[in-house]
Amino acid sequence: MAGNRAVAYKEPGVVEVIDTDYPTFELKDGPGVNPLNVGRKVPHGVILRTVSTNICGSDQHMVRGRTTAPRDLVLGHEITGEVVEVGPDVEFIKVGDIVSVPFNISCGRCRNCKERKTGICLNVNPDRPGSAYGYVDMGGWVGGQAEYVLVPYADWNLLKFPDRDQALEKIMDLTMLSDIFPTGFHGAVTAGVGVGSTVYIAGAGPVGLAAAAGAQLLGAAVVIVGDMNEDRLAQARSFGCETVNVSAGDPKDQIEQILGVPEVDCGVDAVGFEARGHGKDATHEAPATVLNSLMDLTAAGGALGIPGLYVTGDPGGIDEAAKHGSLSLSLGTGWAKSLSFTTGQCPVMKYNRGLMMAILHDKVQIAKAVNAKAITLEDAPRGYAEFDAGAATKYVLNPNGYIKN
Amino acid sequence: MAGNRAVAYKEPGVVEVIDTDYPTFELKDGPGVNPLNVGRKVPHGVILRTVSTNICGSDQHMVRGRTTAPRDLVLGHEITGEVVEVGPDVEFIKVGDIVSVPFNISCGRCRNCKERKTGICLNVNPDRPGSAYGYVDMGGWVGGQAEYVLVPYADWNLLKFPDRDQALEKIMDLTMLSDIFPTGFHGAVTAGVGVGSTVYIAGAGPVGLAAAAGAQLLGAAVVIVGDMNEDRLAQARSFGCETVNVSAGDPKDQIEQILGVPEVDCGVDAVGFEARGHGKDATHEAPATVLNSLMDLTAAGGALGIPGLYVTGDPGGIDEAAKHGSLSLSLGTGWAKSLSFTTGQCPVMKYNRGLMMAILHDKVQIAKAVNAKAITLEDAPRGYAEFDAGAATKYVLNPNGYIKN
Amino acid sequence: MAGNRAVAYKEPGVVEVIDTDYPTFELKDGPGVNPLNVGRKVPHGVILRTVSTNICGSDQHMVRGRTTAPRDLVLGHEITGEVVEVGPDVEFIKVGDIVSVPFNISCGRCRNCKERKTGICLNVNPDRPGSAYGYVDMGGWVGGQAEYVLVPYADWNLLKFPDRDQALEKIMDLTMLSDIFPTGFHGAVTAGVGVGSTVYIAGAGPVGLAAAAGAQLLGAAVVIVGDMNEDRLAQARSFGCETVNVSAGDPKDQIEQILGVPEVDCGVDAVGFEARGHGKDATHEAPATVLNSLMDLTAAGGALGIPGLYVTGDPGGIDEAAKHGSLSLSLGTGWAKSLSFTTGQCPVMKYNRGLMMAILHDKVQIAKAVNAKAITLEDAPRGYAEFDAGAATKYVLNPNGYIKN
Amino acid sequence: MAGNRAVAYKEPGVVEVIDTDYPTFELKDGPGVNPLNVGRKVPHGVILRTVSTNICGSDQHMVRGRTTAPRDLVLGHEITGEVVEVGPDVEFIKVGDIVSVPFNISCGRCRNCKERKTGICLNVNPDRPGSAYGYVDMGGWVGGQAEYVLVPYADWNLLKFPDRDQALEKIMDLTMLSDIFPTGFHGAVTAGVGVGSTVYIAGAGPVGLAAAAGAQLLGAAVVIVGDMNEDRLAQARSFGCETVNVSAGDPKDQIEQILGVPEVDCGVDAVGFEARGHGKDATHEAPATVLNSLMDLTAAGGALGIPGLYVTGDPGGIDEAAKHGSLSLSLGTGWAKSLSFTTGQCPVMKYNRGLMMAILHDKVQIAKAVNAKAITLEDAPRGYAEFDAGAATKYVLNPNGYIKN
Repeated sequence: MAGNRAVAYKEPGVVEVIDTDYPTFELKDGPGVNPLNVGRKVPHGVILRTVSTNICGSDQHMVRGRTTAPRDLVLGHEITGEVVEVGPDVEFIKVGDIVSVPFNISCGRCRNCKERKTGICLNVNPDRPGSAYGYVDMGGWVGGQAEYVLVPYADWNLLKFPDRDQALEKIMDLTMLSDIFPTGFHGAVTAGVGVGSTVYIAGAGPVGLAAAAGAQLLGAAVVIVGDMNEDRLAQARSFGCETVNVSAGDPKDQIEQILGVPEVDCGVDAVGFEARGHGKDATHEAPATVLNSLMDLTAAGGALGIPGLYVTGDPGGIDEAAKHGSLSLSLGTGWAKSLSFTTGQCPVMKYNRGLMMAILHDKVQIAKAVNAKAITLEDAPRGYAEFDAGAATKYVLNPNGYIKN
Repeated sequence: MAGNRAVAYKEPGVVEVIDTDYPTFELKDGPGVNPLNVGRKVPHGVILRTVSTNICGSDQHMVRGRTTAPRDLVLGHEITGEVVEVGPDVEFIKVGDIVSVPFNISCGRCRNCKERKTGICLNVNPDRPGSAYGYVDMGGWVGGQAEYVLVPYADWNLLKFPDRDQALEKIMDLTMLSDIFPTGFHGAVTAGVGVGSTVYIAGAGPVGLAAAAGAQLLGAAVVIVGDMNEDRLAQARSFGCETVNVSAGDPKDQIEQILGVPEVDCGVDAVGFEARGHGKDATHEAPATVLNSLMDLTAAGGALGIPGLYVTGDPGGIDEAAKHGSLSLSLGTGWAKSLSFTTGQCPVMKYNRGLMMAILHDKVQIAKAVNAKAITLEDAPRGYAEFDAGAATKYVLNPNGYIKN
Repeated sequence: MAGNRAVAYKEPGVVEVIDTDYPTFELKDGPGVNPLNVGRKVPHGVILRTVSTNICGSDQHMVRGRTTAPRDLVLGHEITGEVVEVGPDVEFIKVGDIVSVPFNISCGRCRNCKERKTGICLNVNPDRPGSAYGYVDMGGWVGGQAEYVLVPYADWNLLKFPDRDQALEKIMDLTMLSDIFPTGFHGAVTAGVGVGSTVYIAGAGPVGLAAAAGAQLLGAAVVIVGDMNEDRLAQARSFGCETVNVSAGDPKDQIEQILGVPEVDCGVDAVGFEARGHGKDATHEAPATVLNSLMDLTAAGGALGIPGLYVTGDPGGIDEAAKHGSLSLSLGTGWAKSLSFTTGQCPVMKYNRGLMMAILHDKVQIAKAVNAKAITLEDAPRGYAEFDAGAATKYVLNPNGYIKN
Repeated sequence: MAGNRAVAYKEPGVVEVIDTDYPTFELKDGPGVNPLNVGRKVPHGVILRTVSTNICGSDQHMVRGRTTAPRDLVLGHEITGEVVEVGPDVEFIKVGDIVSVPFNISCGRCRNCKERKTGICLNVNPDRPGSAYGYVDMGGWVGGQAEYVLVPYADWNLLKFPDRDQALEKIMDLTMLSDIFPTGFHGAVTAGVGVGSTVYIAGAGPVGLAAAAGAQLLGAAVVIVGDMNEDRLAQARSFGCETVNVSAGDPKDQIEQILGVPEVDCGVDAVGFEARGHGKDATHEAPATVLNSLMDLTAAGGALGIPGLYVTGDPGGIDEAAKHGSLSLSLGTGWAKSLSFTTGQCPVMKYNRGLMMAILHDKVQIAKAVNAKAITLEDAPRGYAEFDAGAATKYVLNPNGYIKN
């Protein structure tokens, strides 16, 4: 029980697997830990032996150097694990439970948690509402791309799988419950997707593909995914989506070819602030492109779900406005159409139980949809590099050998 | 039944009361009538003798020359009237009924109307979803600041008041049902106002004041109204609102003095694209100011209702971006707080019956809240001028002498 | 344009196909027509040549003599047709359109219609809110199990299929949009079915099977259907439902065998007032059995959707209470669990467009789910008899030969 | 800090103030404690010195001998207190905080709590979902009509008032937040009350009056309260309600006199299973009367909120059906009108914060509405007797002298 190995951010473009401390029931000082959180006692926490932990697109923002993430920050907020130790205040979660960890850390005791808004918990991040494991400016909770990880407020945060064997058998699907499946699903829900909807999802990365699978599960009639990466579009087609290659021109025209009308009921932004232009402008960043395009192609009365991350400051932004997180949005277009917009972190806890049931009863194949692939913890740097290069793959780290295949 | 008198737009800054045609059950050619609507038969319509018709802030956009409104466009979309003729297809509305006309014209037969989205009806404006009386680019339906006006799809559109005498007695309140009371109320509803909410409303013009009255009716604990016009702020205080003078500095600080915390649960934008800066920047237009300020001062998990108009193109905008309806928005701030946003015309029909009941049973004094003042039709030019100069008054035209006082 | 053939109720147990009048744009006197509706002008109506029209379980209540339906009442409220004549007030529906007719007739002009509550329209039935074609005490609108039928308020009521050829190709699915698919779906929606739900549906008749298909479309994890008719249960299993034979004992025990817990999240009553007991009591009517059982087997916090018909008076009821429509309900059980209950006619218009999209894009196979079978109009009496005998079949009449196969 | 005084049930019709144990952080054996809860550790709890604690109508069910409540059961589930000790796991609640205790005990860690369904928490009552302090068959948590009381899961359950002095000044209003104000409000919310609604509330006891005040806060146009106790009806009129004396005949007729129509939009049952008949039948129990009457007088499309308690078994019921909690309900009437029904304990936590804000900002005078009256703890037996005799008073016990007047 001595040590721990974990994936750490070193410098722009570089992650390494390092030796690090085995967690205790206290948040100790370390890279990125908010001074006000240093020494925080966690008797309500559990220690997990990681069963699976995924590389996320939002990790890439840090790794690309687009944030102020410090050297040696341990990464990883998509965590599934086996409980190996429980803190003295934990009452219902037991050693041996296989559990999914919502990426957003929440206390279960503040106003927002009581209102199910666990993405903006008031008690876990001294800087602002909302937190996550292994992420810059999120309070300093240590990341879970590691052999072991501490999860606070365990009775509240954890989703226990009903059966250990069944859980391990479906682990490549269930591992998506910690973040991208609920996040994509939240995008679809807040875009108003229901039975019979037509949906356009900007971005065929893992969140976009999860949004597409989520939209299908919600009964959408047609799900169209747009990207400029042909491998990712092929992945989208593999489970029944229509696709649009945005480097080939305005998505609106291609939507018209598919649907007969140049608009959809529901739009999802699964790209965020690192968006690029369309058509021949597709080579450089154009952070407002996706949202302006979605306002253009969503029908009057529609809604936009915006799970894609937009930041308050982006030192690497292409111009002054972008550096300060400002976007030049055609809000008049949206207003004329009476559109509504929902932003922010997905409150995972609102959705993970239902999505787990859908997975356990074979109503959705999310691992297939996002092309999940298990690799060892030591291979994480390769996973980061391939993912950044545009592989149509969701990388799942397997630090303790639970995943067999 | 010979003639008709109406308020018409002449040129920037100028409206006049002109002689015009008495309406028939057909939409004839005229200033601003969409060619595709010319000659449209209206057997489902009724002709109203106007009981009251109000000057609206959105009329001012046209009168200030900020739009492409043509000379002699008859203005007016806030209409209450007495039915004097019914078309052959009208079944339930009868001659003699006193009725409120929702400003958004809708057919009651398209998908959007069936979904209660009457602000974006698909069948009344050949250019795009949504229409209104007497408004540029809205299909060409003739305005109601006149002695007589045609209302199409009358069985669907009209709200009949249950009792004629009662209606005429409360006419200064009921006249607000055609637009600003539902519009302000919609702002409050879409901002998530409920029992116990704290609310900030940007703008103390009639819509802002109506939003404030609406928020009170919804049970808000504290309603704060911000503006830079002291007369309008005094008007807000007259019915129990707190106020913030935005020319005195950042609204956030003043909110903190009122509430003890620098944020509210719900934000309403009752200003729109002609916003000005705050504090010492308050003298020139800054179209994104209100929305950026609302994102800043609304608490995480909150919502923004945006009844204030944003346009797709504004020839009079202060710079290229504004001319094209683009705003530089700090969306990252909103995203970090998981805010949601609702834009667009208020679907009046969703709210007008309930608000009528609240007026008839004395649960709200909307005429007092917006400081309604009746003037003659011939005095309309003076009403426009005073309103444009910032009078804390809602001008109600009284073309046929129904309003006694 | 001379004649018309239609299915008429003759006496308990007997229906016949009779010669009857070709419809005009007026509701003429006839069997079951409310005196206050006699002579009602219908310029807003269209005349349909029937493409398909289904026999419904609620028709059986009349045919079994459980109502006061008069001799020669023309039956049929599940209608799909081709428009052959349009009334003078019809603006958007055109001759040649292939359309689905919601079984609940509504005016599109009253308060309830404006609120999407088309099952309780205030203007079509002089006796009470709500109406339907070919049904006792529903105003007297002539039934559609006929070659031709009149549909009032056509612009409002009709759902036009986008493409004629596609519509005729999928007609066996689309014909379910007029009633049972939305009705079953409404049962699932009001039972709170969502992604990951466990659902129990009492009754494997066509509405129960449609509720099951609807629950699947909504993303349910497990759908369990209960009945005592093994053919119907086999039909339920054919598209992935679990089943419970209620004649074999308490459904709760069988649910426990399926789910591991003796309760579900959501309960649907697709049986109604002609329910029979469970287990060895299954041979006689016990009108409260289904609801009491659903309260027993639905988990705390759940909801019950009740599309199954309960009547205000039932002359054929088994005892005095039943004759007056009173049920002995264990409401205490429901209260202790904080259950909610939704009753009434499905407002078809709320759902039919979305379900049409799901059918047209192959997201649901409703014809297969309910085992739809086309027969000629002249064969209707046989269809009634077989359906009453418990055939696991949904009978679709084909009066004009549109259905090929 | 040795002892404690508390109100205990002795036998039908008799309560006494007894000496009892000062609480510790453990649920010890005692009258009515579920054996499975005996010895349960409560490190997450706090001990309160009671500021105020109210006598509730549901306490009367026990005192009248209508339940199996054991001798010496300490009563009281409407509790406001000052924190005097905190358990080792409590993180955010502090000694000295003045707090409101939701009457429904919940863990904040189970599926239902995460879904805001705190009235049916899965972890506090071994017998079934849901629990309360000092109540028979609810797990055995000791009642709070006492000087001191233990509150488990304190960080989750407690609502802290922002300012001590302000709280004590408004204590007669704030004391209603533990049960009847949210309970009545929940009745109004689930009855669909909104701006402009017409509402009928059956029962003018404290919950009915709280429902009436809640309906007003929600913007209802007209609130009508029915009862047969003239003092209570006078109390309802004192804050602007209309009233109906049900002993004078069918409420429907009296509603017509008030509204002009014999029906309301929304119905609330604030009576429950001990209902009596109407008109000349008003002298004996008729448990289904209220619900049948509400179905009769609520308009089609309306909803019924049912905060009034219905039990699964009632040994004192008037007949066999009542003894088993069965009611003879005219469900057919409700079905024909498409009514919906919501039952169960109010999940207090969903509403108490907003209602607190409304109280603190003077938007509602709930103490006045229910005619709150403070008495000493030792006077509790007199309070019980007067309340049972029909006093139009809400009795508030003042065990530690916090309430000054």
